[in-house]
Amino acid sequence: MDYSPLEKKIRLKFKDRDLLENLFVHRSYLNECRTPGLESNERLEFLGDAVLELVVTEYLYKNYPNDEGELTNWRSALVKGANLAKVAKAIELGQYLQLSRGEEKSGGRSKDYILANTVEALIGAMYLDAGYEAASTFINDFILVSLEEILKAGEHIDAKSRLQEVAQDKKEVTPHYQVESEEGPDHDKVFTMGVYFGEQKITTGEGSSKQKAEQDAARAALQKMGW
Amino acid sequence: MDYSPLEKKIRLKFKDRDLLENLFVHRSYLNECRTPGLESNERLEFLGDAVLELVVTEYLYKNYPNDEGELTNWRSALVKGANLAKVAKAIELGQYLQLSRGEEKSGGRSKDYILANTVEALIGAMYLDAGYEAASTFINDFILVSLEEILKAGEHIDAKSRLQEVAQDKKEVTPHYQVESEEGPDHDKVFTMGVYFGEQKITTGEGSSKQKAEQDAARAALQKMGW
Repeated sequence: MDYSPLEKKIRLKFKDRDLLENLFVHRSYLNECRTPGLESNERLEFLGDAVLELVVTEYLYKNYPNDEGELTNWRSALVKGANLAKVAKAIELGQYLQLSRGEEKSGGRSKDYILANTVEALIGAMYLDAGYEAASTFINDFILVSLEEILKAGEHIDAKSRLQEVAQDKKEVTPHYQVESEEGPDHDKVFTMGVYFGEQKITTGEGSSKQKAEQDAARAALQKMGW
Repeated sequence: MDYSPLEKKIRLKFKDRDLLENLFVHRSYLNECRTPGLESNERLEFLGDAVLELVVTEYLYKNYPNDEGELTNWRSALVKGANLAKVAKAIELGQYLQLSRGEEKSGGRSKDYILANTVEALIGAMYLDAGYEAASTFINDFILVSLEEILKAGEHIDAKSRLQEVAQDKKEVTPHYQVESEEGPDHDKVFTMGVYFGEQKITTGEGSSKQKAEQDAARAALQKMGW
């Protein structure tokens, strides 16, 4: 695989090429691939998630005098799956993913949560290959850059609360949520929750917990309704 | 206040003395204290929590080949309030806390969650004053050092699951949980949950969410029952 278009975009040439390859290995691929000892990108994602959290936290702490409750909300909006998936699309990460045929068929290459996890794996790999400053530069250029826009759009306000408020105001209805499906092992579940106005299903959302999937569904509903 | 006994224990002399003072200011103290512009330690705690998470994550990633689900459990056990409160007691942090008279009277100086938050604020302050390596050394010496013990004691296994298993085995009862109280503003709630065997209340736990308070209650119940 030629990674140079990506390395140009992220302005980092990986020294460790195995690490660069590893960050794109989705766990579904392991079942089909014969390379012994191949690991999925999930450990890198575990590391990258913590790097991302510290870089964003430090930036907010140093640049805004607001209290930690408010900064926690801003941070959530910055690191949420939908936002990271946008970043993945901007740097065209999806094309490098190694997926199983099944995952490929079901559109895995453009699923928000797979893309978001790959961004975290990329951050973890950058941190290992080039250090905190390099990861921090990437996070500044591609993630923190959207803070003002997120604040302006009110995305840092809890989506479920916002949806409820607007739905009651415009439709005199209180949204409710229902589990549509639950997949994967315990420590890595993906929940799909549907959001309903009365009997009418508006849309669904995904997340690693019911609460996160509901937030994701609420955000999608706000978008779908044009609110 | 003479901080030198503490600085000796943590092997770091703070350059920024205001920062050192600030990390001990509990929010309850602000109402009684007349110093204009005084801030509570909550922003430092917000930063320190993220520093702690990355240091622990990086350590686990680099030293153990286990999958990220397992490492996530280990990390939770290492950074949980009860464990951080132990660290606080070991370095005798409580004596430096600035509390309101009310909080002082109600035993705030030895409350686990106040102590745990102060350890996070200390880590945030060390990071700002002396950098990632200094914070990392402290976390290695005082927190990561207990990993083997935690693993041996099985503390990394979800306490609620463990309590349920043992209670069913020994008492043929399924523990249940009930909200005892809910205090504080939305972004900083403290829940107290009671854990019951049938009608009998065993003990309570505290946490920033119901789920965390239940885990805390389950851990306390395991200890109380000698399990």
